[in-house]
Amino acid sequence: MRFVFRRSLLRYAILGTGAVGGFYGARLQRSGQEVHFLARSDYKAIRSQGLHIKSKDGDFTLPKVYVYDDPKDMPPCDVAIVAFKTTENYLLPKILPPVLKENGVALLLQNGLGSEQEVATFLEPEQIFGGLSFICANRLAPGHIHHLDYGFMTLGAYAPNYAARGISPILEAIGKDFHCAGFAVTLEKDLLLARWKKLVWNIPFNGLSVILNAQTDKMMASPAIRALAEQLMQEVLAGARACGREIPKAFLEDMLEHTAKMIPYKTSMKLDSEAGRPLEVEAIYGNPLRMAKQFGIELPRIEVLYQQLQFLNANLPS
Amino acid sequence: MRFVFRRSLLRYAILGTGAVGGFYGARLQRSGQEVHFLARSDYKAIRSQGLHIKSKDGDFTLPKVYVYDDPKDMPPCDVAIVAFKTTENYLLPKILPPVLKENGVALLLQNGLGSEQEVATFLEPEQIFGGLSFICANRLAPGHIHHLDYGFMTLGAYAPNYAARGISPILEAIGKDFHCAGFAVTLEKDLLLARWKKLVWNIPFNGLSVILNAQTDKMMASPAIRALAEQLMQEVLAGARACGREIPKAFLEDMLEHTAKMIPYKTSMKLDSEAGRPLEVEAIYGNPLRMAKQFGIELPRIEVLYQQLQFLNANLPS
Repeated sequence: MRFVFRRSLLRYAILGTGAVGGFYGARLQRSGQEVHFLARSDYKAIRSQGLHIKSKDGDFTLPKVYVYDDPKDMPPCDVAIVAFKTTENYLLPKILPPVLKENGVALLLQNGLGSEQEVATFLEPEQIFGGLSFICANRLAPGHIHHLDYGFMTLGAYAPNYAARGISPILEAIGKDFHCAGFAVTLEKDLLLARWKKLVWNIPFNGLSVILNAQTDKMMASPAIRALAEQLMQEVLAGARACGREIPKAFLEDMLEHTAKMIPYKTSMKLDSEAGRPLEVEAIYGNPLRMAKQFGIELPRIEVLYQQLQFLNANLPS
Repeated sequence: MRFVFRRSLLRYAILGTGAVGGFYGARLQRSGQEVHFLARSDYKAIRSQGLHIKSKDGDFTLPKVYVYDDPKDMPPCDVAIVAFKTTENYLLPKILPPVLKENGVALLLQNGLGSEQEVATFLEPEQIFGGLSFICANRLAPGHIHHLDYGFMTLGAYAPNYAARGISPILEAIGKDFHCAGFAVTLEKDLLLARWKKLVWNIPFNGLSVILNAQTDKMMASPAIRALAEQLMQEVLAGARACGREIPKAFLEDMLEHTAKMIPYKTSMKLDSEAGRPLEVEAIYGNPLRMAKQFGIELPRIEVLYQQLQFLNANLPS
């Protein structure tokens, strides 16, 4: 493997070189993009040994990557992909501006709702994009990532109050780059719709997996929990509808059917909980509930999960 | 301590000599009643060593008690107090009839709703009474019971569909016996109202203590869980109202305030869960939900707890 810089193309920063950021960034670099990785705990290992990807699409190693432990040392980039958890978003005002060129853009590859609104407090709306990744990937060791399954993504542009903004040229360019890196990419004219759609799965299964200490197979095998998951999904649809976004009932049914057939799966929130990391409670529960409430809708079942998860999050075994 | 039989008085059977049955039965016997205890796992210990009560009201021992491991060996009694958990109610059709005199009565000293209706399938409504005990008592060892606090009780008569039946002479007599045994007793004309009132506390705190693995103090210290507890209590009030029973809002507020001040308390459901015993999910959640639904009311937050507890109950660590 040799580096081939195509300087005419976009220069990427990956903020948060964990499983998700490391994997997407490594694939972008392998496809020829210039990529700069911001790492924290894994900085030294990645600097000395590079990135090692074990993937169902083929294993590969990047022996040398541009890696940093301080955003101020990074060159200004066209696109900064935020790939850490929303629980670290308090870092964004400090980390994000130094790595962006003038008019550079941020792509928030994060779960839940609301990250774009946080970034809008210090970047222009035109600089803000959101992404949803559907991927199973774990960090095996510093700089070693295991990509188990999936990898497709949905990207969309942010406008104030999540108004649908259509597809801009820069969004198309980013989409093309991910496509060249081997991912199925959907460009979505309406980022908020995309975010609500992902919540259809995340709201029931992330929270319940932590609360019930269970993987997807065991939950789906319980008629009570299958019914609860469906009721929670219906509340997500009601929340989306309150915000003017219609998700068809068939989408919900597909999700349930797909989940019932999935190999036993530990949700990201369950992994966070087991590792004693903070849970993404606000992004996945608090912000959607508040947005629905702004439009006059209560979602009582989702609120119960939110309240329970706030308690568990505050009482994580450390 | 010597036995003084007052044969003119009611003869009691205690079905289920655990902490609750053992304690109430021992106090009845100490006050002069004739009491016959049905025990299972503790039968041999009680037969050889009697009952040992450690109580904040004074310790005492009954070196000799009438104890049985088979209801068929018991003499016919005027009053059979059912003191085992509702999860064992499938035993009632077999256990209860043999221990009752003709026209003898059953007093279901159990949690939740619905036990009386189960018994009504094989006894006459006039033979059925319900009781609610407010007590902290643990079984320390076979035949050894620790009464930590409280002990007051509410008794009421059953009529088909839980219609209010007023106070009958036999209910008054039982109430007097418990009073003589040192307990504060409330006779309630409307058993269903009494049962819904007890659910105001049991529905939030029993379930959440298991789901969140927490005692009352930790739950009340969390603003999210305090809010959830209040919302659940409001749903209990709505359920009661649907059944034609009005519980004043002040009752709910007293419960919350009282719970916030209580010493850290493990609910009975939490103790069951820790011991790997089945949880009283149907009596405390399923039956009230179904009754409210009959009257056209959905209680979504309570239903979430019910669904979660069904899952946990089916997946108890054994």
